[in-house]
Amino acid sequence: MIKKRIMGLDYGSKTIGVAISDPLNITAQGIETLNINEIIKDFKIKKIKELIKEYNVGTIVVGMPKNMDNSLGFRAEATLNFIEILKNKIKSVEIVLQDERMTTIAAERVLLEADISRKKRKKVVDKIASVLILQTYLDIKN
Amino acid sequence: MIKKRIMGLDYGSKTIGVAISDPLNITAQGIETLNINEIIKDFKIKKIKELIKEYNVGTIVVGMPKNMDNSLGFRAEATLNFIEILKNKIKSVEIVLQDERMTTIAAERVLLEADISRKKRKKVVDKIASVLILQTYLDIKN
Repeated sequence: MIKKRIMGLDYGSKTIGVAISDPLNITAQGIETLNINEIIKDFKIKKIKELIKEYNVGTIVVGMPKNMDNSLGFRAEATLNFIEILKNKIKSVEIVLQDERMTTIAAERVLLEADISRKKRKKVVDKIASVLILQTYLDIKN
Repeated sequence: MIKKRIMGLDYGSKTIGVAISDPLNITAQGIETLNINEIIKDFKIKKIKELIKEYNVGTIVVGMPKNMDNSLGFRAEATLNFIEILKNKIKSVEIVLQDERMTTIAAERVLLEADISRKKRKKVVDKIASVLILQTYLDIKN
């Protein structure tokens, strides 16, 4: 039996980062960044559906911004709204949340240790957030 | 009740990296690198015992080197030997293993994305391996 793959989504105010697992669901790879528009409610659902079909996705993991005290963080409400839309529009896949707090902290720490500037750290973390969200989920699952 | 803290150990051929959790067991911090000598069987057990007492440690997490196919990796035998010694010499704490494969891969990927040279990547990953091992364990546990 061919395993269904897992998709990781990093929901931002202007973009959604998309990562996908390998066929064995061990590692995560970034595949695309989708430009979205919250004001006109363009969340690129059609494109996400196409990617689900193309990669035979069974589960979507969405990063959930949380604060250190476990309360919901900045942008959490918008993320929850996006998850509701996903659930309504895409019935064929399971949707799960992954706390992205520690993922970001770990990545920031690795970059700090490498003496990367604050500006570049943010850029790098943003770029691979979906990969880190999915990789964390895979690590916990495996 | 005060929570027992958790210690992360990255066992290398010449050094053991030591990390410790905060009192709430949410985040990991690197505290020390111990020089060891496998030939004369000097594993700094006395120093590890002192750190256990000083930080009120209840659990030690040791990073386990594995290959991508889940088989034991290079240095796995030496690591298992070290774990046996730990178990025999230190009875007061629980000792658990943490697969360090994904931790290292994730850190390498973050550094690759930041255009860090191969040489520096290795240096950075080695330096914070114990922190990443412990942080992964804490993330999975919380």
